[in-house]
This record gives sequence, C-alpha cells and structure tokens, in this order.
Amino acid sequence: MNNIKLNALSELIENSKLVNCPDLNAEVRQVLPLGADAKNFVSFVSSKAFVKEAKSSKATLLVVNAELAEGLPEKPMLVVPNVELTLIKILHHFFPLEVSNGTHSPNAIIAKSAKIGANTQVGNFVTIGENVVIGDHCIIADGVKIERDVKIGNHSKIGMNCVIFHGTEIGDNFLSFGNSTFGGDGFGFTFLNGKHNKLPQVGKVIIGNDVEFGSNCTIDRGALTDTVVGNGCKFDNMVHIAHNCKIGDHVIIAGQSGLAGSVTLGNHVLIGGACAISDHITLVDGTIIAGGTSLRTSPKAKDVYIGWDLGLNYPDFQKYRVNIKNVVNLNKWIKRIKDIEKKVGIEAEEGKD
Amino acid sequence: MNNIKLNALSELIENSKLVNCPDLNAEVRQVLPLGADAKNFVSFVSSKAFVKEAKSSKATLLVVNAELAEGLPEKPMLVVPNVELTLIKILHHFFPLEVSNGTHSPNAIIAKSAKIGANTQVGNFVTIGENVVIGDHCIIADGVKIERDVKIGNHSKIGMNCVIFHGTEIGDNFLSFGNSTFGGDGFGFTFLNGKHNKLPQVGKVIIGNDVEFGSNCTIDRGALTDTVVGNGCKFDNMVHIAHNCKIGDHVIIAGQSGLAGSVTLGNHVLIGGACAISDHITLVDGTIIAGGTSLRTSPKAKDVYIGWDLGLNYPDFQKYRVNIKNVVNLNKWIKRIKDIEKKVGIEAEEGKD
Amino acid sequence: MNNIKLNALSELIENSKLVNCPDLNAEVRQVLPLGADAKNFVSFVSSKAFVKEAKSSKATLLVVNAELAEGLPEKPMLVVPNVELTLIKILHHFFPLEVSNGTHSPNAIIAKSAKIGANTQVGNFVTIGENVVIGDHCIIADGVKIERDVKIGNHSKIGMNCVIFHGTEIGDNFLSFGNSTFGGDGFGFTFLNGKHNKLPQVGKVIIGNDVEFGSNCTIDRGALTDTVVGNGCKFDNMVHIAHNCKIGDHVIIAGQSGLAGSVTLGNHVLIGGACAISDHITLVDGTIIAGGTSLRTSPKAKDVYIGWDLGLNYPDFQKYRVNIKNVVNLNKWIKRIKDIEKKVGIEAEEGKD
Repeated sequence: MNNIKLNALSELIENSKLVNCPDLNAEVRQVLPLGADAKNFVSFVSSKAFVKEAKSSKATLLVVNAELAEGLPEKPMLVVPNVELTLIKILHHFFPLEVSNGTHSPNAIIAKSAKIGANTQVGNFVTIGENVVIGDHCIIADGVKIERDVKIGNHSKIGMNCVIFHGTEIGDNFLSFGNSTFGGDGFGFTFLNGKHNKLPQVGKVIIGNDVEFGSNCTIDRGALTDTVVGNGCKFDNMVHIAHNCKIGDHVIIAGQSGLAGSVTLGNHVLIGGACAISDHITLVDGTIIAGGTSLRTSPKAKDVYIGWDLGLNYPDFQKYRVNIKNVVNLNKWIKRIKDIEKKVGIEAEEGKD
Repeated sequence: MNNIKLNALSELIENSKLVNCPDLNAEVRQVLPLGADAKNFVSFVSSKAFVKEAKSSKATLLVVNAELAEGLPEKPMLVVPNVELTLIKILHHFFPLEVSNGTHSPNAIIAKSAKIGANTQVGNFVTIGENVVIGDHCIIADGVKIERDVKIGNHSKIGMNCVIFHGTEIGDNFLSFGNSTFGGDGFGFTFLNGKHNKLPQVGKVIIGNDVEFGSNCTIDRGALTDTVVGNGCKFDNMVHIAHNCKIGDHVIIAGQSGLAGSVTLGNHVLIGGACAISDHITLVDGTIIAGGTSLRTSPKAKDVYIGWDLGLNYPDFQKYRVNIKNVVNLNKWIKRIKDIEKKVGIEAEEGKD
Repeated sequence: MNNIKLNALSELIENSKLVNCPDLNAEVRQVLPLGADAKNFVSFVSSKAFVKEAKSSKATLLVVNAELAEGLPEKPMLVVPNVELTLIKILHHFFPLEVSNGTHSPNAIIAKSAKIGANTQVGNFVTIGENVVIGDHCIIADGVKIERDVKIGNHSKIGMNCVIFHGTEIGDNFLSFGNSTFGGDGFGFTFLNGKHNKLPQVGKVIIGNDVEFGSNCTIDRGALTDTVVGNGCKFDNMVHIAHNCKIGDHVIIAGQSGLAGSVTLGNHVLIGGACAISDHITLVDGTIIAGGTSLRTSPKAKDVYIGWDLGLNYPDFQKYRVNIKNVVNLNKWIKRIKDIEKKVGIEAEEGKD
C-alpha cells in the first residue's frame, strides 16, 4: 500500500544516486533480505560479505555504498553514504512510526491533578494518578497503570499493560513494550528478631532521554537515593535493574540479563544476553560483557569479558575453551604425573592426593 | 463434587478393566499420589519404580498397565493400555477443561472492523484492535490487549493481562497464561553518530497450532522477516524468544530459558530451564540441551549437550564434573610437575610459569 | 513536608537518647547516606566501617548504637538499641506506609459471590471472580485480575496488573509489585503419539503470611498436590517457582532465580540472584546458594554453595577461581608432562593423548 517509485525513493535519501535503473517509475513495495524469492522489493548490501549474494539477488533495487557498488557493475542500485541509515529511512516509509492520535479514552481514569501534554494519547483502561505530569505527543497505551507523582517527557510511549510506580521520572523519546514494571521497591531486608524486616525503599527511578525498554523488564526504585539510567540506553526483554544502579549513557543490555544492587555502568557499556552482574560491580566506559557471563568482581580496565565467574578477558577465555578437553581428562594427566614421580623416585607427601 | 463410581470411571477409559474391585458402586472423588493419607481417591503406577509404594497405597483404585498389574495381585486396579493418557482423562473428569462462555464483556473495547468467531468469550477490560480476526470457541481472558491486524485461530485461549502486538498470528488450540507479551519489537540497533539507532522491526510473530506459552513470556517480531514457531511447541514461564528465530514442531523450552536472535530449532528439540542459546545457533531435530546450559556454537549432531559454554556432550560433561576436584587442586599438581622437572634436570623456559 | 524536630524524632524510638544536640527544636526533613551534600538530614552508622565517614558527615543527626557512639565524641547523635530498626521507623515517618482507602472502584468487576473484607480497597479495572474471599484492610491495586476461588488474608496488597489464577491461597500481610502471575499451570507434559500431551495441573498455590513478591514473578500451581510457600519469605523480581515446590519459612530468593519442579527448601534458605535450582533438589535449613549458581544435585549439608554446576562449597570455589589461570594454560602443562615422560623414558600408551 505504500508502494514507492524508484525516483521518489531516491529523493527520500540525501546524496543518494540511482545506478542501472532504466525505469525510474518502477515501483517497490517492501524491503526484504537479498535472497528473498519475491518481486518489487528493495534489499541492501551492508558489507563486503554480502556482495556475492547481492549479485544473484532478485531485488528491484540494492542499497549500497559507493565502495561496494564497484563490485556490482550491472545491478540496479541506490548508492548512498550510509546503508543502514538509508535502510531505516526506507523502512519508515513502508512502516510509518506510530504517532499519538491525541485522544484520551473515556475508559481511562485520569486524576484531576494530573497534567497531560498537548496531543498525548491516553489509551483504554489506563489509570493516571495524582500529580502525574506527562509531556506532549506521548502515547500511554491500553492498560498502562501510572501511580502518583510520575513524570514523563515528550514523545514518549509507554507500552501496553506496563506499570509505573510513584515518583518515577522518565525523559523524552522513551519507548517501552508490554508488561514492564518501573519503580517497584528495591529488594532490601534486614534480618532481626527471627524475620526479614523490610527496609523502606524511598529512592526513585530516574530515566534519561531516548531510552528503550523491551517487554517484561523490571527496574526498581533506589533504597535511599535513586536508581538512575542515562540517555540513549537500550534494554531488551526481561532485563532486571536492581535498586541504586547508576547507568551511564548509550548502554546496551540484551535479554534476560540483570544488574544486582548498586551496580555502576559507564557510558557505552555493552552487556550481552543472560548475564548476571553482581552487586556493587563497576564497569568502566566501553566495557563489553559477552552473553552468558556472570561477573563477581569489577574488571579493572575496559576490555571484553566473558565466562562464568571466571573474570577472563576474551583471549584468555578462548584458551580456556580449548583447555576444557584437557580438564575432561585431567584425572588421566594426574595419573601420568604420579607414574613419573614413581619412576624418578619422588615420594608423594602423605595425603597429598 | 465430581465423585464418580468405579464402573463409570472404567467406562470413561477405552479397553480398561477393573480388577479386585468387589464394589463397583464405590466412589472416588479425587486423584492423589500413591502415598496420600486420604480416602476415596484414585492413584496411578506410572513405572516399575512405584510398584512397591503402590502395594501400601491407601488408594481406592490404582491405574496400572497390564505388565505392572502382575506385581500387584490383590490391589483394586483399573488395568489400562496407557496409564498417563488415562490419568489425563480422569483428571479432566474431576477438573473439566475451561470452555468459553461465549459472551463479550460490555467492558471490552472491540474495534468495529474486528471479527470475533462464534462462541468466543471476550473478557473484561480487553481491547481488540482494528482488523483483528479471532476464531471460534476462543477465550480472550480479562485484561488482554490485542493490537490491530492480529489473527487467532479456533479454540485458543489468551491468558489474563497478556499483550499481543500488531500483526501477530496465532494458530488453533493455543494456550497462554498471565502477563506474556507477543510480538514486541526485536532488539536491533546500529551504532552511528554516537548513538544506537533503532532498526525498524517490521517482521511478524507467527505461531502454529497446539502451542502453549506459560506466564511472563516474551516473543519478539522479526526484523525484516518473521519469527516463527511450529506446531505442538510448549514453553514454560519467562521464556524469551528473540527476533527471527525459527522453531520447528513439538519443541519444549523450560522456564527462564532464552533464544537470542535468529536461532533455528529443529523438530522435537528439548531445552531445559535457565538455558541461554546464542544468536544464530542451529539445533538439529531431537537435540536435547540440559538445564542451566549456555550454548555459544552450534553442536554438529543430535545429542544431549550440557554445561556452561563448554560445548560438551553429556558423557564428557560427567567426566568434567569428576575433574572439578582436580581443577580445585591444579596448582598443587603444577607444583609437582615443577618438582619433577627439577629432579630430572629439565630447565623450565624463561617466563614459562 | 514531614519535617520532624529532633526531640519528636527521639520520642519515636524507644530507649533512644539524643547526644550533642543543643537545639532540640532543630528539624530534619529526610534520611540520606552519610556522604550526602545536603542540609537537615538524618543519617546512620550501621557498622564500624562507617565511623570514619560519619565523622565528616554533614548530617544533622547520626543514628548510632552505644558502642559506635563512643567513636564519635562530638557529633550530634541519636543513640539507639538497634540502628536498622530505628532507620525503618524514621523512614516510615517520612514515607508513611500505603494504607487502603477502603473504596471499591466503580470500574472494578466484582462477582456477587465474592466476599471483600472491611476497609479493603479495590482499584480500577480490577476483576474478582466467583467465591473469592479477600480479608480486611487489603489493597487490590489497579488492573489486578483474580480468578474464582482465590483466598487472600488481611492487610495484603496485590500490586498493579498482577494476575491470580483460580484457587490460589495467600496469607496475611502479603505484598506484591507489578505484573506478577500467581497460580498459572505447572509445566507438565507426557510425550505420546507424536506430541506433548498436557498433564492437567490441578494443585493449588498456597502462600503463608508476611510474604513479599517483587515484580514480574511467576509461581505455578501444583500438578496433583500444591505448591507451598511458608511464612516470612521474600522474593525479588522475576523469580520463578515451578509446580510442587515446597518452600519453608523466611526464605530469600533474589532476582531472576528460579526453582524447577518439586524443589524443597528448608527454613531460612538464602538464594542469590540468577540461580537455577534443578528439579527435586532439597536444601536443608539455612543453606546459602551464592548468586549465579546452578545446582544439579542436592548438597548434603548446610553450607554456602557456589558455582555453575560444580557442587562446590565456598572455600573450594575460591580455590577453583585461583586455578582458572592454570586451566587457561593447561595445554602447556600437559606439554611439560609429555616432555618429562620423554626424558625419563616413559612411553605414553597408544592413543593416550
């Protein structure tokens, strides 16, 4: 339905150039991978590794940069400064970004003291508590529940059935998907008189601008001070951020990873999926933690860390993996050490093995 | 309340035979484990291992197969071709499957363009978007939110407070529990100009027939193409399926396990709980991944794999575990190697240790 | 807004004594960490390790015990029998506990057969099924969905958008945060005739008094018998408890940890974050499982256990970690063993390495 002619498409992209496209009125109607068995589609060549596949692609148009275009002499191409940014722009043509319809559902319960900005959409079965302030052009999707004193910036979307506890502050251009929970109590108890006594959690959650949370995430309020997330951070599904974490800017955390309490992440930290970061760990700017890693101590320097509890950097982890086959046979090697000792007349100490 | 007489119970089960049951009008009122201290209950002997316990069971009736019945000469029994299928049938007598009441709550918001099948129940505070198509005899439980263009087959149930994003397609006999999220965006960004730029996620989630999802699961839409789940798959709670995964038929994934992007699972794959499967991994038909396993590379053949990042199959993992005690003392063994070298006059290379 | 004078604050705490406080009418308005750069705040010295920081604290008042007070001769202090319990009491002054407003939202759907206790609050877009019994002074927050036959004690709070399946029983003083799911089906199938046949899950979830669940948790109903949680247990976010688990009293489970089916936990068990406990494991009273640990077998005695799949107690794990650097170089050590064998004339068996 959003078919677009090649020349119109070229006009969308600054400094782009159509090459080998005799019919500028030819239309494309979707974006597909190079190997798709389809018609009228755009595809893209994101690196040299895909040039070969591109040569036999049925794509009506290939998005490439100038360098890669040289390897595709006869293919119809849109030569662009940056393939990925072009791809994003073309996809937005076919799938326009969701925008607020500016209406408040009659089935939403909005406290009188709440301030809802211009052109902000409030969905069905939403509740918005006292003194909540929501900016302009936001979407509060169906089923969202927002407690008192929450602040949300402009152009932000809270996904369906998400829950936001009191006092949480969220910046501009926020995006979350379904069933995530923001600002629940941190997990803090003191064991006295035979039971776990709850330490009141009175800090807030404070989230910067341009942050995305996936579905079914949780981020807890701080104990005394706040849990803080910087600008430009992106969190996948089922990410858990415990109380008092301080997260810098442009941090990525992939699915099912969690930060225990009081973790500090610098800017541009990348954490793969299924990672567990222990409490009070600090990661400096640019640190990368490979998926499936548990960290128990703070690595000293920026590097790639990997591996369960081992504190290994990436090269050592590679050696570790190679040596697993030796660990599996370690008892045999130990037998050989003992045999040698016997032969050379070394007497093993009492109880040594 | 659903008490049943022994002869009526026997009639429920094809090719069953009551043995040692003088009073066919005796009633049972529940199913309990063999060791239960109760009256008027049915129990079952699912394998030879339980024959001894069965002998002293207080059960009014034991469900057994013909082979095991020989070991229980005097016990009141229902001898059946298959114990487990019989158990399922008897449990359904006591606890009938939930069925649609066929009503649409006046508190549901259903778009005019949505098509809801015959005898489908739509619960309270449900929202159903434009062009949604739902089959017959479905239950859309309280609080469910369904965006535009979603398709759901017949006899499917969407559990309370689940969320389904636009375009998701779900087959027949689907079942999900609470707070699961279907079709949120995949997690894809490209880092350019100092920030993570979101790659639009425009694929769908497509789920076959007879699939079950537990509570608080997430499955993401594909990036350009779809995330696909075959028929007969069963997923436990908090299972995460990332964008572009292709899952075959009759796959099982237990609690808190996750698939990173573009994972391909063959048919009859079994993945235990708390597993992390890295992106682009392929598992062939029938592969078994033991609980607690991380996989970083694709195993070559059908087998049982286990262990963090080790790529070990089950027998090697058993050896690995035995050798952990040697790893713990590895420094002592290394000392012994050095002592031998000294004794036999081998000079360690500079910086070798 | 809840400013309090020092003498009033002292009156809140039994057996407390103000020391070095010339102006008893001085006011404090919040609780902050020792190092806070602020005015009019209370802080606290919870152990000897903080005495040095306390000396330079800008706090208007330091909460300390008598022993630590000796090290702070000139600071304004509230000397108390127990610092942490005092802190809890003071925080409750500044942040009073949420209490029920006693109203039932006109937007809640409450079955006629349901019994709601005195002074219990029922929020917006809540549904409460047939024969549900809820005690006095409870809060059923916005968006909660409760199926038939659920029982909830007194003074309990069910957090926003939580879901409770039929028959679940919850005690007094319960607290849960957002999007948790109680009483979904356990994960049980039997593979027959080419497919996974669902075993009906007909047990309940039964939860004692004084239990807390965080956000996005799941606890499943039992298969034939019940899933049981004792008194005083506290569960963090994204904790998963599978069918038929039996959990004692005062158990702690931190974020993203899960129990597979039929796990038995004694009293006062502590499980850190990101742990995976295999099915049928038993942990005796007081067992501690460090964060990031997988357990595949039941430890025999009360101890601290740690480490992926290794079954190591804490001291052995420390040795294990030290030896990782040796594992990384294990191939070199094996080379040295072979060199020695050569030198001393031991012939390695065919295929031995």
